Parts: sequence; structure tokens; C-alpha cells
Amino acid sequence: MRATLMYGAGDVRVENVPDATLEKSTDAVVRVLVSCICGSDLWPYGSMKPNTAGHRMGHEFIGVVEDAGRDVASVKRGDVVIAPFVWSDGTCDFCQAGLQTSCRHGGNWGNPDAGQGEAARIPQADGTLVKVPVPEDSDLLPALLTLSDVMCTGHHSAVTAKVGKGSTVTVIGDGAVGLSAVIAAKRLGAEQIILMGRHQARTDLGRDFGATEIVSERGEEGAARVKELTGEDGTHAVLECVGTLPAIETAFAAVRDGGSVSRVGVPQYRDVPMPSVFMRNVSLTGGVAPARAYIEELLPEVLDGRIQPGRVFDRTVKLDNIAEGYRAMAEREALKVLVRP
Amino acid sequence: MRATLMYGAGDVRVENVPDATLEKSTDAVVRVLVSCICGSDLWPYGSMKPNTAGHRMGHEFIGVVEDAGRDVASVKRGDVVIAPFVWSDGTCDFCQAGLQTSCRHGGNWGNPDAGQGEAARIPQADGTLVKVPVPEDSDLLPALLTLSDVMCTGHHSAVTAKVGKGSTVTVIGDGAVGLSAVIAAKRLGAEQIILMGRHQARTDLGRDFGATEIVSERGEEGAARVKELTGEDGTHAVLECVGTLPAIETAFAAVRDGGSVSRVGVPQYRDVPMPSVFMRNVSLTGGVAPARAYIEELLPEVLDGRIQPGRVFDRTVKLDNIAEGYRAMAEREALKVLVRP
Repeated sequence: MRATLMYGAGDVRVENVPDATLEKSTDAVVRVLVSCICGSDLWPYGSMKPNTAGHRMGHEFIGVVEDAGRDVASVKRGDVVIAPFVWSDGTCDFCQAGLQTSCRHGGNWGNPDAGQGEAARIPQADGTLVKVPVPEDSDLLPALLTLSDVMCTGHHSAVTAKVGKGSTVTVIGDGAVGLSAVIAAKRLGAEQIILMGRHQARTDLGRDFGATEIVSERGEEGAARVKELTGEDGTHAVLECVGTLPAIETAFAAVRDGGSVSRVGVPQYRDVPMPSVFMRNVSLTGGVAPARAYIEELLPEVLDGRIQPGRVFDRTVKLDNIAEGYRAMAEREALKVLVRP
Repeated sequence: MRATLMYGAGDVRVENVPDATLEKSTDAVVRVLVSCICGSDLWPYGSMKPNTAGHRMGHEFIGVVEDAGRDVASVKRGDVVIAPFVWSDGTCDFCQAGLQTSCRHGGNWGNPDAGQGEAARIPQADGTLVKVPVPEDSDLLPALLTLSDVMCTGHHSAVTAKVGKGSTVTVIGDGAVGLSAVIAAKRLGAEQIILMGRHQARTDLGRDFGATEIVSERGEEGAARVKELTGEDGTHAVLECVGTLPAIETAFAAVRDGGSVSRVGVPQYRDVPMPSVFMRNVSLTGGVAPARAYIEELLPEVLDGRIQPGRVFDRTVKLDNIAEGYRAMAEREALKVLVRP
């Protein structure tokens, strides 16, 4: 079968790899219908050291079950399923608590299979996959695909920052996660949603999703603008959807005393600069999103169109042209690229 | 009147200062019955640059109202009152939300009056003071005095870290705040409370307060011991009651995935080292405790002896001998020093 490998910065190739097959009785094999490129894929795309073995790419995909091990009970051949961006057993204490990213028997895609390919072996299929009631050619596939990562990641940022009815919220970043965070904040009842971004097509989409104000300034100037829009208080929640040091600095400058900064962009820094945060009782929360925990809650609203996170996809490529998709996202020509095998 | 001033590291003096008097109609004047020395007073005691003006010390005290401005309604001459460690109006949105440390019209003791003296002017007396139903010579004064800071600070750490029924908790630090955090974790329903400390008299008191295990190792070794005591998972909550860089590093090493580190020791560092925390969904919370928010909740249990935080006081000095109290605390001869004018 064909699959995507990254061999170093800027070096993405689609190659023949061994077919996905069942290895354990708890596995399933899924033929991929749609996958996509993640903002987090762009970090290695920008900086990965050359590696002759290559690294299998892709952790967001929807597919059709082709085969299932004898211990798989929740899905069967022919089912259309969402694969969240880690696999998990669904039964351990962490999974039961909704933290599937810390599953005691879970893991990450890429070893060996991953989403940006024609098929994938799914470990712990019962705990991992979520069956969705749509046909293989449904127009809802892009929207449903966001439940494998970005929509759930945006939701995680809003939930961990305790966004609720009447909250004021700043979303830092107009990428797919930031825009999903706007959707999440809106549906949780936020009354003011300030989106920080400077790419007009994206901030326009953010307005459609529920952003009440757009701040195009960055850094101190951007935080000052958020303060201005909130009577100098800052917002209850700041959802940091970028992952850079300047973004997290802006987050702490824009948050209200007693509020929360939630970061869901993979941090590209180690130590967190938090001056004055102690005296202001600001919390830092978030982390890698347990997408699996949120799919059932968000699924009905995707199915009936109340939320339309699929609109973050503004380009589609064939698997064999995925390198072009990476380039377009890295150069910010495309917001988020859908991949069809 | 007499009051304590700090002129630099190790230089604490009791001097004559202007008498405390009413300045605004919302002020009260309180004659101090008992005050104490705080662990946070030891930071400037260890490092303050010489300052010829001196700095008035003390933010924990209980006193008797001597005079009250015409707009003060909640207390009157003769009332015994607790003064929490910041003053606050009690009416602004932050106060109403229980974050009196961010009060829009609040402030810190020391300008001009503070607790380590014979009397103090109390700004925003209605919002600040809490009347307690005990006589001036009550044996409960030491226990009640902890509600001005340490008991509420320990409670704040437990509350912000979401300690509840069945929680597993690590408390870092066997000082007065750490021991108060043990009391707080116990009363909130924690089932395992691991106290990290190496001063036996203090850890023994910690056991009395509810600690289930004592870990005397520090740093990586200490965190490894916590892991060992929790099936390698770490605890749901880590209450960091010290404020040093090694303490916060230990906290992140000892916390369970999905858990919270709450820091209530004034941080003696700026950037927070948080490796791997993102992938583990660990939150950092806490901050300077809004003691005023918690006094009503804790007061009944102090009055009836269900909790006995007054046991953290192991030495008493007269105000004129307060320098000896500072020395004894700085050298860890005394756990917490009570001061009687």
C-alpha cells in the first residue's frame, strides 16, 4: 500500500509500505477514506533532522473497517469510523477518567501505520474507534474528520480553561485549532470571544464561528488590545492554540486575574515564563487533547450541522500529492489540507 | 506606638512609629492581640538590600476594634476580629468571586501599618475584617490567627488543585503552610496524603493532622519515593508549599497524569520548568491565597476544635523581642512564631 513518510525537514514522500494487517486479536484494519495534515506535522516539516528510515505521518483519519480481530466487539467490517489521534484501550482508569492520551495500553500512530496512507492497523480497536452513521461518500466526512483532532483539541482548550456561560475568552491563533476553539467557546456559552490572528480569510471564518472581535496585533501590543476590549481586565480564559514562546507570553498578558490559560499547541519551548502570575492567581492548564473523550459529545452537533468545523479545510490533495499539501500549509497558503488516498 | 521594621537582611527592629488612626470613613483601628512571623517574611529577612526607610512588617494578626469610621457597619469598638493578609472592599466583582487578593480597591499591609505592631489602621474595614465570637484572652487566638494566612493558604492550595473525596495528595514542605495544607487535604476527603519534609517534629505534627506517609528524600529521589507509594503513578494533586525551584521541579515529577500542581509558596524563581507536562495534561494552579474568601468556611471547625491549625505555633515572643523570633524561624529552630505586643 501507499503511505506518507517524512525523511527530514521539507522532505515528505509517498512510498510503498507493507500492507496494514491484523497483528493482535484486539486490532482492526481500516481503509482510509480521508486524512489530513496537522499543524503539529509542520514542526518536524520545518526542523526534522535527516533520517534515512523515515517517519510515518498522520494521526487524523476516517476510514472503513476492512477487518477486525476476534476480540473486537464494537466495530465490524464495513463500518465508517473515526480514529482519534492516539489509540487507547478505553478500559483503564485513565481512559475511564477521560484522559485517553495517558492510557495504560495506548500509543501514538506511526509505528508502523499512520493516517496519511491507504490503510492502517488500529491497535485497541474497541477503545479507539468511534463508529459514525454516515456512508463512505458522505459530505460530512471533512467535518467528522476534525473530531479526530482539531475540533476536539479546540474543545479541550475551552473545557480545561473552564469556559462557560458568560465567559470572556481570547483565542490566540487563527489556525484550524484556534478556529475550532472559537466554535468550542461559542457552544459552551462564552459571551465575548476575541480571536487573535492576522490572516483575513481565517479571521473571517472565525467571525462566522462566533468570534466577537478580531485582534491582528501581536505580542504586547496584542495583549494591550485585548485589555482595551475588556475594560483593562483581560479575559477569563485564554486559549493558546499556537505553541510558541511569544504566544504563551501573550496569553499570560491577556488573561484576567483568577483566570486560566489553556495551551493546546505543542509547546516549542521548555520553561514557561510566568511573571506576576502567582500574585494574580492565574492557572496554566491544557495539554495534548484526549480527543476520544469528546467525540460522543460533539458528534451529534457535527451530524446535524449545528457546528461546522469541516470549514477549516480549504484545500484537498490526493495522497500522492501530499508533499504539495505540506508545502501549501507550511507557507500558509492553505489553512488545513484534506488528503484523499 | 511600637511596630516592627525591617531595614535589610537580618536587620529587624522594633521602633516607635506614629499611632494608627482613622483616615477614611471606611477605616477601622485595631489594637493587635496576636500576630506572627510568616515564612514569606523570611525571604526579605534573608536577602533584602539595606533600606534606610525601613519596611513595616506583618500581615497576619488578630485584634480588638478600638475605633471605626462612620461608614463601617460590620464591626464596632470592642469586637475581636481577624485581619486577613490583604485588605479588600468585599463588594467589587473580584471580591464577590472570592478573589479578594485582586480587589479593585484593596492593598497590602505595610503602608503605613502592618500586623507586627501594637495597632493598625484597617482600610476597607467592612470588606476586610471578620468578627470572631471569642474573648480577648481566648485560648483559641493562635488557631484563629492561622485564618489570617497559613490555614487559608494551605486550604487554597488544596481547593485550586481540586482535592476531594478519594484524592491522592503530595504536600511539599513541612512548614506552617505545608502542615495547613495537610489539614485542608484531610478535611476535603483526600485518602492518601504524602508529606515531604525532613524535620521530625514537624512531620510528626503532619501525621497528627492527617498525613498518611512521610517522604524525607528531596528532589528526584523524593519524587521517586512518591511514585513508589502510588504504584508509579504520582498523586492527583501536589501542593507546593515552599516556593523554590527545586520544590516546583519535584512537584511536576510527583504529579499524576491529568493532575494539578498548586503552588502557594511565593515563587523564588521566574520561569517554570515544565518538561513533559504538556503530554501529561498536568495543570499548574494556585497563587497568593484570598484568605478572606475562606474564613467563614473554616471558622466553625477552628472554633469547635475539629481542626487545630494553632498547633503550628511552637514559640511565642513579645513584640520587643521579635528579632529573636525571626532568627529562630530563619534557622529553623522554630516552626512558626507567635508575637504578643
